[in-house]
Order: sequence, then C-alpha cells, then structure tokens
Amino acid sequence: MAKILDCTLRDGGYYTNWDFSTDIVNRYFTSFNHLPVEYLEIGYRSKPMGKYLGEFFYCPDYVLENVKQLSNKKLVIILDEKDVLKEDVAELLRPCLGIITMVRMAIDPKNFKRALGLAEEVRKMGFEVGFNVMYMSKWREHPEFLAQLKDVQGLCDIFYMVDSYGGVFPEDVRNTYNLVKGQVDVPIGFHGHNNMELGLINTLTAIECGADIVDSTITGMGRGAGNLKTELLLTALNAKENLEVDFNALSQVTDAFEQLQKEYEWGTNLPYMVSGANSLPQKDVMEWVSKRYYSFNSIIRALHNQKEKKQDNEHLPKFTSDKKYKKALVIGGGPSSLKHRTALHNFIENTDDLCLIFASSKNAGYFVDTDKDQYFSLVGNEGFRLSAVFDKIENFRGTCILPPFPRKMGTFIPEKIRNHSYELEGVFTKIVDDSHTVLALQTAFELGVEQLYFAGYDGYSDDKIGTKEQELFVENEELFKAAAEKGITLHSLTPTRYKGLGTDSVYAHLT
Amino acid sequence: MAKILDCTLRDGGYYTNWDFSTDIVNRYFTSFNHLPVEYLEIGYRSKPMGKYLGEFFYCPDYVLENVKQLSNKKLVIILDEKDVLKEDVAELLRPCLGIITMVRMAIDPKNFKRALGLAEEVRKMGFEVGFNVMYMSKWREHPEFLAQLKDVQGLCDIFYMVDSYGGVFPEDVRNTYNLVKGQVDVPIGFHGHNNMELGLINTLTAIECGADIVDSTITGMGRGAGNLKTELLLTALNAKENLEVDFNALSQVTDAFEQLQKEYEWGTNLPYMVSGANSLPQKDVMEWVSKRYYSFNSIIRALHNQKEKKQDNEHLPKFTSDKKYKKALVIGGGPSSLKHRTALHNFIENTDDLCLIFASSKNAGYFVDTDKDQYFSLVGNEGFRLSAVFDKIENFRGTCILPPFPRKMGTFIPEKIRNHSYELEGVFTKIVDDSHTVLALQTAFELGVEQLYFAGYDGYSDDKIGTKEQELFVENEELFKAAAEKGITLHSLTPTRYKGLGTDSVYAHLT
Repeated sequence: MAKILDCTLRDGGYYTNWDFSTDIVNRYFTSFNHLPVEYLEIGYRSKPMGKYLGEFFYCPDYVLENVKQLSNKKLVIILDEKDVLKEDVAELLRPCLGIITMVRMAIDPKNFKRALGLAEEVRKMGFEVGFNVMYMSKWREHPEFLAQLKDVQGLCDIFYMVDSYGGVFPEDVRNTYNLVKGQVDVPIGFHGHNNMELGLINTLTAIECGADIVDSTITGMGRGAGNLKTELLLTALNAKENLEVDFNALSQVTDAFEQLQKEYEWGTNLPYMVSGANSLPQKDVMEWVSKRYYSFNSIIRALHNQKEKKQDNEHLPKFTSDKKYKKALVIGGGPSSLKHRTALHNFIENTDDLCLIFASSKNAGYFVDTDKDQYFSLVGNEGFRLSAVFDKIENFRGTCILPPFPRKMGTFIPEKIRNHSYELEGVFTKIVDDSHTVLALQTAFELGVEQLYFAGYDGYSDDKIGTKEQELFVENEELFKAAAEKGITLHSLTPTRYKGLGTDSVYAHLT
Repeated sequence: MAKILDCTLRDGGYYTNWDFSTDIVNRYFTSFNHLPVEYLEIGYRSKPMGKYLGEFFYCPDYVLENVKQLSNKKLVIILDEKDVLKEDVAELLRPCLGIITMVRMAIDPKNFKRALGLAEEVRKMGFEVGFNVMYMSKWREHPEFLAQLKDVQGLCDIFYMVDSYGGVFPEDVRNTYNLVKGQVDVPIGFHGHNNMELGLINTLTAIECGADIVDSTITGMGRGAGNLKTELLLTALNAKENLEVDFNALSQVTDAFEQLQKEYEWGTNLPYMVSGANSLPQKDVMEWVSKRYYSFNSIIRALHNQKEKKQDNEHLPKFTSDKKYKKALVIGGGPSSLKHRTALHNFIENTDDLCLIFASSKNAGYFVDTDKDQYFSLVGNEGFRLSAVFDKIENFRGTCILPPFPRKMGTFIPEKIRNHSYELEGVFTKIVDDSHTVLALQTAFELGVEQLYFAGYDGYSDDKIGTKEQELFVENEELFKAAAEKGITLHSLTPTRYKGLGTDSVYAHLT
C-alpha cells in the first residue's frame, strides 16, 4: 500500500499567498492526526523574494515549532530548486532540524544536474530527500535528463513524477513509471493535477504500478486547476482497499477548505482542461483568466492556436487617420452610460468636432444611432460582442482598432467588420498594450484629440470590487495619469471613482 | 468513433425543477449547432404528476416546436419507465412525431420485463428506442434481468449502461460491457456520473471497448454529483482523437451554465463520493444534504454505517423524568440569544420553577453557567458541538436527549456525555422526529412544562433565506402549531419572525 502525502498548505498557498487563518491551520493539523496520511507538506523555505509572500512560504521558526506541536505526522517542506543555491542550504534548513522529516525539491528536468548537487547538501543534513521532477508529459523531449536519471541513486529517497500540466492519462503514468524504473531502482512518487479530472485514476494507476507514495490536497486546493482531492483518494482507498478512514475527521477538514474554495474558486474549468490536454503552461492560463479583459473565448482560442502552432496573428492595415477631432467621448461598459443615456445623446448631437470611441462594445448598441464617427476598441471577446450588437444592422460604418501586432490573444474579427479593422502601430505607454482603455486612449492620440470625455467609466462600487477589478482599476488609473502627462485633458461626464479623470457633468454641457 | 449525446437540460432539470431561462435555452441550442454532438436530450414527457414540475419535464408542443426551430441536432426525450403505462404511450408521444428522433426509457433492472412491453409501443410509432438501464454496479445481483437481456434484440437501438451510483471504475465498465455483449448483439451506450471524478475515464474506457454512444452534460449539470462534463469530453477527444471542436461555441455554452452552477452548486462532494464508492443511493444523500439539521459529519457517518451494515443504532435508556417544571426556556441558534444574553441570564436566575432546553448547542457555551437544570437536543452534529463547548468543563451536569430509536443518522455521543444521554420513546407529532425543535418540544412535554419560552428563534432575515432555511422555517411553524394544540403556551422572549410563537420580551420580565 502506497503512503500518502498531503500538501494542501503548500500547494494551496498559490491561492492565498501562503497565508491561512489560525482556525484553518488548527483544524487542518488536528484533523489529519486522525487520518491515514503519512506526510504533511506544510510549505516552502525560501530566501527573501522581494515581494509579499505569506507565513507558509517562508515557514519561519515559530511556524515550524507550532506545527510540530499540533501534528503527529512526518512533516515536509519543499524548495524551489531554481531559487536555492547549494551554499545556502545549511542556513535555510537549520531551523528544520528535528522538525522536518523530508525536504522535497521542485525541479525542472533541464536543471536536473544542478539539482543533484543541491540534493547532496540537503541529505548531508540528515533529511529524507524528495525529487519532484516536473513536466512528466515532456520528459521524453529531454534525453539528457533521462540519461542522468541513474545518478539519483543514493541521493534520493523518493523520485516523484509530477504531472505539471494535468494532462497525462493512466497509460502515460504506466509508461513513465516503467521508463524511470528501467533506469534506476528508487522509490517512486506521483503528484497528479486535476485539469482533466484524471487525478484519481492516474494516482490509482501509479499505486497499481507500485508507486511508494502519492500526493493529494484537501478539496484539491492547489495552483490552477488543483490536485487530486485527498477526500476522494481516501474514500476510494477505503472502498477498494479497506483503508481505515475516520470520516468524521475527514469531513471536518474538508468542510473548512470548502468554505475557502467558495472564496478562491480553485478547480478546473475549460481553459485549464485545454491547457492540460495539450500540455500548455497553466501559468499563462492563470494569468489570462485573472485579467478581466480576456474572455474565456479568447483564452481558449489562444491556447488552441498555441497548440496547433497556428499563427493566429495576421497583420492588419495600420491605423492612421487624416481625419482629426478636437474632442472625443469614450464610452465604457459601466452602468452610468446607460443611466444617463438621454443626456449623453443630447451631448453627442450638440457637440461639434466630436467623435465616439467605444472602449467596450457592451453599451455600444445604445449609442451607435448617431452621425458622429465611431471607433471601437477590439480586445479579447469584443469581436463577439460587436457581432451581437451589429447583427441586425446592415451597414457597419465604424472603425475597429486592434492592439499592435503580435497580439497575445490572436486576431479574431467577425467577417462583417473585417474591412473596417486596423491595428495600432504601438501604444504611448509600457503599462499595457491590449486593454480596452489603452486602445481607446491611443486611438484618441491618433485622432489628434485634445479634450477627452468619458462616460460609463464608473470604477466599481466598494462592496463589489474583487481582486481582478481592483487590478484593472489601478491599471486604468495609471493609464489616465500617463495620458494626462502627454498633454490631453480627461474628464468624466458621469459619476466616477477614478481620480485620474477630472469630474465634470454631462448635464453641465446641455442647453 | 462513438457518438455523443448531451442531456444537460434533462439531467440538469433535477436542480432547476426543469425550468430554464429563455436566454440559456437559446444559448444552449445555438452553441450546440456548432459542436460535434449528435443527440440532444431535452427532457421528459410525462402525465400530470400532481406537483409543480417545469417546462422541460413535460415538454409540451410549443417547447418541442421551439427546440426544433433552434436546433439542427437529433432530439431525444426520456420516459421514466415506472411512471408510464404502455397504454398511454401513443398519446404521450404523438406531439413528438417528426420532432423527436429517439425516445429513451429510464429502467430499473427489476422492471426490465415490463420495459420490453413499453419499448414495443414506442418503437411502433417509429422512434429510435434507448434502454437506459440503471444501477449497473448491481446488475450481477439481478440474474433474472441478465437472463432477459437477449430479449432486447429488435426492440432496442441503444442499450445504455447507467452508472447510477457514480461509483464504477474503468475495469467495471469493461466487465459490464463484455457481460452485455456476451448476451446480446446490440449497440451499447454509457451514461456516467461523476461522484468519484471517474466520469471521463469511464467514458473513454467505454469508447475503447466499442461503445456506440456516450452521454455528458455541460459543466456536468445533473442530479446529485452530476455527470461527465461535455466540455471535458470534447477537450479530451479533441486532444486525443483530433475531434474537431469549435471552442468558441463550447466556451459560450459552458460560461452560461457556470453562472447557473454558482447558484445551484451541483458537483461532487464528500457525501456523494462516499455514496458513489459504496453504491449507496444518492437520493438519500441529496435529501440529507438538503436538510439543514444534518451535518456532513452525520451524513458521512450514516452512509458509512449503511455500507458496513453496522447497526450504529444502539438503544439508550429511555428519557423519563420525575422532576417536573412549570416553565422552560428553549435556546436556539439564532443571534438574538447572544445579543440579549445579559437580560436572558437575568431572566433565568430570577424565574422560579424553570429549566433550560438547548435546541442547538451553538450558543450553549454562553448559558451553561447557571444552577438551573439543563437539557440538550442531540441531533446530527450536535454531539461534536457539545464536546467543543464542554471540552474545558470538568463536570458535565446536563441531560442529553436523542431522537427515538432507530435514528436515521445513527447514534453519535462523545464519551464525555455518554452517561448523560437518553432517547425519547416517541414524539408528539408525525411532522418530523429528529429535528432540533421537535426534540426540544418533546422534552418540554416530558418535563410537564406548561409555559414554554424561546430565545434565539429568530427565523431568518428576508435577504438571507435560502430554500433549506425556508423549509426548516415552515417545518418549525408546523411544530409550534402542533405543540400549541397540545395545550402548551409558547412565547418568544427575543424578536422572532415565527408567527407560531407568541411575542413577548425578555425585558418585560426583568425587575
């Protein structure tokens, strides 16, 4: 029977920045005292990383001592091989002596040789050593790594196959297991991700092959799509192998993390499935999913194109304009542009030398019915939105502006507006080059605009702002500041929380 | 390559009572027009069932017509074999002619013979006929069913293996496939549930065996833990078999149902895992999970005991009492018992011939510090709560009252209070026999109480009430009414929304 290692705090830390409440920490360790799990991996040890990372990323002395008090399990910490020099090992791990049983190392196969040196230092101190070698679905692309495999003999207590992309199938687990066992006689571990909901079956397959240890986390909490769920593994082993499980303890700890899951929403979804199935980096997906202006659609599309190595990045005609305007009104996606639309219509019709720039197509349908010239920022999913808006309209007469080439999310333009689409040569700032707002601002610069009005740039109401919204809010403020420094004036005609937009009122402009 | 049948609306209806918004229905059918799925199962046809069931449970004419307009797929409806007489088939299915391609029947293997008669009628009308035979993990316990298998020849276009409990493993799929194919040469289908997150691998295994058709639903929406996710199946087949998938269409429909999922929260969890792994009826789990007074802990415990056929139902001494009181104060779990605790303490100390009955142990810690006699309702998770409250107290002097024997959730009593625990002989009503409130009321009757005061029975604030809370609220109202009819008077000392509790104020009793 394989041993089980639970790494909820370590791997779940990717969502909480390695901070957990005292309550949940206590519940975690006291519950596991009653569960048939041999090792608990509690976090990283690390040199200062120059940004905020929480308690279980550094696991200082007092954390180690506290955990030792709470837990009757073998305790594990992990090092990120690329961030640790072997000269630093002694100092980094000294506080772990007498508390930590095993030290694991997360290793990119291309740094495998260097990792052997690190392992030697760790082992000298008396710790068990785990090699967590990532990207198992791509190991065959690293013959130099495979050739060095046998050098782990004597340095390694557990050699882990890590399904970093979450895309391996049971037959891949079996093949990789045999590949390693064919080279070197060392205990084998398996760390499975759950992008394809194959965490359980892959892990059971590893156990069937003869794996000595397998990883899981409560509720699957872990980077991106997350891991095999500890409660699922224990339930399966209870039913299939009569493993004794205290379901009261198990449900107590599971309950606690389910509450946290509602807040952080780890687990798989379509982009994670696609990245897993095609061994594409989950990190890109996480970054894209967390940006509010990329829709699922664009992400799937970009991933899919990456997979097919399809250059989805056609060059478009560059956007230049002989037409110039003194003023432009930028219409955002906030509710205030609808609330005040009668007044805004009035403003539009009665202001000379004005054009419209739709930062988002969300509210465009309410404003297109005007003779003024119209420009549309096209980023992420906007192409789809725009087709929805214009599907019923015969002659599209707007101009669509896309980010500069090459575009991270590729180029999606509905057929109907293809002849109206242009790309920017570049943008005026390094902050971002493909958000709705930066496109709107750059368009204004290209059109020679001096006075820039905004509507529907509400910011967010305090009770609704999440992390994504907050980041976008800060990014927009930076953009407004940078644009003002270029000599354009910016005013919001509707209520706004943006400090970078001068306050003005659409009603002050009406006659 | 197997065909795919998506049954999101039919199986997802268990969560929405078969009502879906026009938006989501449109999005569903228009997106699927671009996806490599052959059949869409849209719902049931049924005779009136005498309770509210929505649009897609009855699929009236206009629904069928509308779907036909929206969709370019083969359409399917399902009949619940146990609810349909073969005499009624012609009338029930006439509106489906020319619109519906396949009629499936959900069949309990013990009614298999009767189902053959039904199939004959359906087939006569020209529909393809699907046999969805449930409980595949228990087929071997039904030799009479296995012996009749070959009679489907000529009556059945697809013979489905249904993993009703969601607990089969790939090897079980393979064995059952071979079992059926050994008896009869008929196209095979597979309908997998996701309790153990084995929906994908079981379905891929069925395809590998040679299955002709497999089921899935968007986001896995479906009864209990739900189904294999359509987006996961398509992503896997795209990566492994080069199945062409329009990921834009796929993500549009997935997005829409993910929103719904946040509201209804289908998907697996620990009780579903345990019921799946042990082939225990999910229906019990659903009912228990939806009752607010059963904790996960008690459910897991009950399931686990069911599995081990362990009679977790020890007889306790019957609760009788020579001690009688004129008055009792029932303390519930609502916040008002804390808010007014100083006054309540005062009331308790200054009221003669009074005892305390803790309906919930939630706030018990704040009131135990009194000389008055104390009784505790012990249902579901209360035992755990009580140990938390009393862990620091040396001598527990309360009396714990459990529901009558046998208890659905078994008997869990922490060691510390075992000698203080008694069971009721019965309760005064048929409404329920194991809720917090009924135990408190019955205890009051046993103690001869004439005046019953309540604190912390707030009801729920309007903006926070969910379905579970509402059901519990209604149940409590019924209990108060029934208790009043037995001649006891009921008054709430703190603000309450319960109409069955006379309003009173703790402050009116203070000197």
